[in-house]
Amino acid sequence: MSEGPRRDYKWWGWGDPEVEPALDAEALAVLEQEIGELRPSRRVGSIEEIALPDPTPLPPGLAGAVGEEWVLDGPEDRVRHAAGRGYPDLVRLRSGGLEGAPDAVVMPAEGSQIARVLEICAAEGVAVVPFGGGTSVVGGVAPLRGEAKRLVSLDLARLRDVAVDSRSLVARLGAGLRGPEAEAALGRQGLTLGHFPQSFEYATVGGFAATRSAGQASSGYGRFDSLVTSVRLLAPAGEMATQATPHTAAGPALRELIVGSEGVLGVIPDVSVRVRPAPEKRRYEAWFAESFEAGAEIVRGLSQSGALPDVIRLSDEDETRVSLALSGPRGTSRALLERYLRLRGVGGGCILIVGIEGDEESVARRRALAVRGLRAGGAVSLGGAAGRAWEKGRYQGPYLRDTLMDLGALVETLETAHEWSGLQGLYERVREALAQSLAAQGTPGLVFCHLSHAYPDGASLYFTFIARARAGEELEQWRAVKAAACEAILDAGGTITHHHAIGRDHAPYMEREVGPLGVDALRALKERLDPAGIMNPGKLLP
Amino acid sequence: MSEGPRRDYKWWGWGDPEVEPALDAEALAVLEQEIGELRPSRRVGSIEEIALPDPTPLPPGLAGAVGEEWVLDGPEDRVRHAAGRGYPDLVRLRSGGLEGAPDAVVMPAEGSQIARVLEICAAEGVAVVPFGGGTSVVGGVAPLRGEAKRLVSLDLARLRDVAVDSRSLVARLGAGLRGPEAEAALGRQGLTLGHFPQSFEYATVGGFAATRSAGQASSGYGRFDSLVTSVRLLAPAGEMATQATPHTAAGPALRELIVGSEGVLGVIPDVSVRVRPAPEKRRYEAWFAESFEAGAEIVRGLSQSGALPDVIRLSDEDETRVSLALSGPRGTSRALLERYLRLRGVGGGCILIVGIEGDEESVARRRALAVRGLRAGGAVSLGGAAGRAWEKGRYQGPYLRDTLMDLGALVETLETAHEWSGLQGLYERVREALAQSLAAQGTPGLVFCHLSHAYPDGASLYFTFIARARAGEELEQWRAVKAAACEAILDAGGTITHHHAIGRDHAPYMEREVGPLGVDALRALKERLDPAGIMNPGKLLP
Repeated sequence: MSEGPRRDYKWWGWGDPEVEPALDAEALAVLEQEIGELRPSRRVGSIEEIALPDPTPLPPGLAGAVGEEWVLDGPEDRVRHAAGRGYPDLVRLRSGGLEGAPDAVVMPAEGSQIARVLEICAAEGVAVVPFGGGTSVVGGVAPLRGEAKRLVSLDLARLRDVAVDSRSLVARLGAGLRGPEAEAALGRQGLTLGHFPQSFEYATVGGFAATRSAGQASSGYGRFDSLVTSVRLLAPAGEMATQATPHTAAGPALRELIVGSEGVLGVIPDVSVRVRPAPEKRRYEAWFAESFEAGAEIVRGLSQSGALPDVIRLSDEDETRVSLALSGPRGTSRALLERYLRLRGVGGGCILIVGIEGDEESVARRRALAVRGLRAGGAVSLGGAAGRAWEKGRYQGPYLRDTLMDLGALVETLETAHEWSGLQGLYERVREALAQSLAAQGTPGLVFCHLSHAYPDGASLYFTFIARARAGEELEQWRAVKAAACEAILDAGGTITHHHAIGRDHAPYMEREVGPLGVDALRALKERLDPAGIMNPGKLLP
Repeated sequence: MSEGPRRDYKWWGWGDPEVEPALDAEALAVLEQEIGELRPSRRVGSIEEIALPDPTPLPPGLAGAVGEEWVLDGPEDRVRHAAGRGYPDLVRLRSGGLEGAPDAVVMPAEGSQIARVLEICAAEGVAVVPFGGGTSVVGGVAPLRGEAKRLVSLDLARLRDVAVDSRSLVARLGAGLRGPEAEAALGRQGLTLGHFPQSFEYATVGGFAATRSAGQASSGYGRFDSLVTSVRLLAPAGEMATQATPHTAAGPALRELIVGSEGVLGVIPDVSVRVRPAPEKRRYEAWFAESFEAGAEIVRGLSQSGALPDVIRLSDEDETRVSLALSGPRGTSRALLERYLRLRGVGGGCILIVGIEGDEESVARRRALAVRGLRAGGAVSLGGAAGRAWEKGRYQGPYLRDTLMDLGALVETLETAHEWSGLQGLYERVREALAQSLAAQGTPGLVFCHLSHAYPDGASLYFTFIARARAGEELEQWRAVKAAACEAILDAGGTITHHHAIGRDHAPYMEREVGPLGVDALRALKERLDPAGIMNPGKLLP
């Protein structure tokens, strides 16, 4: 590829600039009934309206390392690399109140150029933020300078090589490949990676690895980290590469140090991952469970008996109700709503999305096992149309967030995980913390949740909350709610993140997550691999 | 438990002192035909004949930390903790030529005692070797002192607590539990861990974790490291514990730093692992593949289509021939031999052991899938009796090694792994290196191999070699062959160890395995967690 940097996404919001879903009057009325009247918020109309400080001049060697045309310091590229896509990022972008922006965007073409860039930046004290799709929702690409005076965003979009070993079913994928690009390249050989996070359309392979991403089908295909067979890290101190082997007992797993390193140890230029034959058939359907607790028991049973579908997603009562009312935000549809209402009336009950992929025979076989578990747990089928509607809308959530923010709403998500024995307690505690914190600020909200990413020993919980934004104080409002949720998660024994990673937003909780000695161990690694401390300052480590 | 240290195993060899399998005259004749005439070797008859240096006095605080009766410095305990169970260990034990022995064996009862022992040893410069079952075959428990003048073996046999969360199917197991003890405790609740390495009878849970053990059924149940949900490390610098969660995206995986740390970072006092319902049914059978290559293709197909049995083990032509001839060493039987001979005549062909466990229905379902793959690959069934014979003899290998050593043979095993596309090349290269190195020393040998631990992307290879021992020069002979094999493995792109770990024997190859920066990163961790450098000197790191 020799095009310039990617500009095919909204600079101020999520994804495709052509896609701006509306919320119809009926849905808005339902929402306002729940959270109060919304007052539309305004956003900056163009990048030119954003006041950026002049870029600080960078070491001239950088242009030598990657070629002059690949060091970009115009306002558009700086703004496009100034924030991720979490709620606070969007608040800043929309208000034009960016705390900072990179002094330039540097776009290396391959590993040796990255090594040279890191060498120069380490020598000259320039902070480096590795940048894939820029879709982090935890501040993972925020341009925090730390001790440095200058900062570059290292955009990996040019690293898009694909090399497939079809005998071993392993593919080496360049870090800059977006989800659909990786799938297209594999699809041409009849293969799939099977990794479909909600950010799929814009997130990159490098980001999947650096953040331990999990996708909507990860119950079946495995989380991204479990797909990685080997990986390279280009650190300021040099290169580290793990063996291409299905497994090794050669000491602590360095692969597991590189995966999840969130750019603070170095740059991941490419990743080798397990791939598999693209499924002949994809069967998605919706089921209806009596309650969240009953649904969770069904999922636990399926997980522990080897009958887990590839996609399993249980909405709680509130998510079920709200998503049906809003007709789309959680990916469901009117058609489903009508069936559902016929079935149950208005209150109670939970939607369970079940997706199975593979060849005809294995889909049939695995579905039979799953159906047995679903029925045994008292679930009722809502049919294939509702499941397909969910599948079709699976990437729509972030688009609707923009719409809701335009309308004046705070919309945020967060996630955690726990063992089955602690899951219900975690669910209740976090829900309560979110509701109380929103109410205490005079903006009572909607809080809902789904259970996904099931394992034999536990599952993740994914919370969404919507409330009136406190105009002009959106960040303070968000901070208070986020803090309440994080404290509740840790108090209940959950992990601070199942798949969004630590980034900037969770860094203050890292010590409670891994303990002081865990933080110390990670610091020791960082000091050895990045002695000048230039890699992604302010992320991961408190 | 309040008994003393374990003395229920041969101090000079493997396992149960009552078990000393004989090799009948016919089998011996076959063997000598292959490797030349053997001259029985002698071994020291009793521990008293071994000259041990007087123990160096230890800090008196140790007795205060664990109780005086748990600091043992008698010759029997010192000898029993002076070596693992690799070939060079056995050579030393049998000759009485121990390089060293711990100054004492220290047996803590729980974590706080371990912490206190480490504190004292760090302050006083006493090396500490964590000791589980003492079954390492790579020198993992060798009493190497490093910079220290004194050394204690920290025997974890008293740490045997079991706590089961039957809702999450997670059990916290004390490090000192042996395989059968853990299975018995879980079995009382209808559960199993499913971890059955050849060392099962004597190896411990702590050792499984510290070395990334893999068991004979790990294709189905998962390697030990994949069963670990959370783990604790007691390091000289303090305690590190990972979250009890099925997964976390909170940065690099500290769990994967503790697992595989081989005692060089600290002590693992207990491990939480996934367990599952004990199988109702275990169906083992033997199949016969045309060739090793054809058999490997069958296993690859099963792995890549989700049809992998719990146990899969493909012997190459030589292992098939020799194990049948020796009637037992690789776990097969005369009955099998006869059937096999009827089927094929003497030369060529490979035994494939297939084991499936679970409830009636799932065994039937999974077997049908496996059988389809086996037949499609041209395999022929040898029936259940042969498979059960293998299962029955699955732990016998190390006993037969003692018998063969008595007869004057060198017997050793080593293992590696690679992706499927590199596996055949790795196989040929290592086999050739072993054969050539043995021949070059005037002791041409038998070299054979099996493929096991299959994954979608690759598999492990497990080599055995038998030759006449060079009396009085056993260690030199072993070193030359081992070095040739290690070089061949790395040249062919394999990992230096799939499940035996690094220990002392593979430490010189660690830099080629993980690269100089990988070694540096591990050193940085070690320096932070064990600043005085007392933990298991001479292991893992070159």
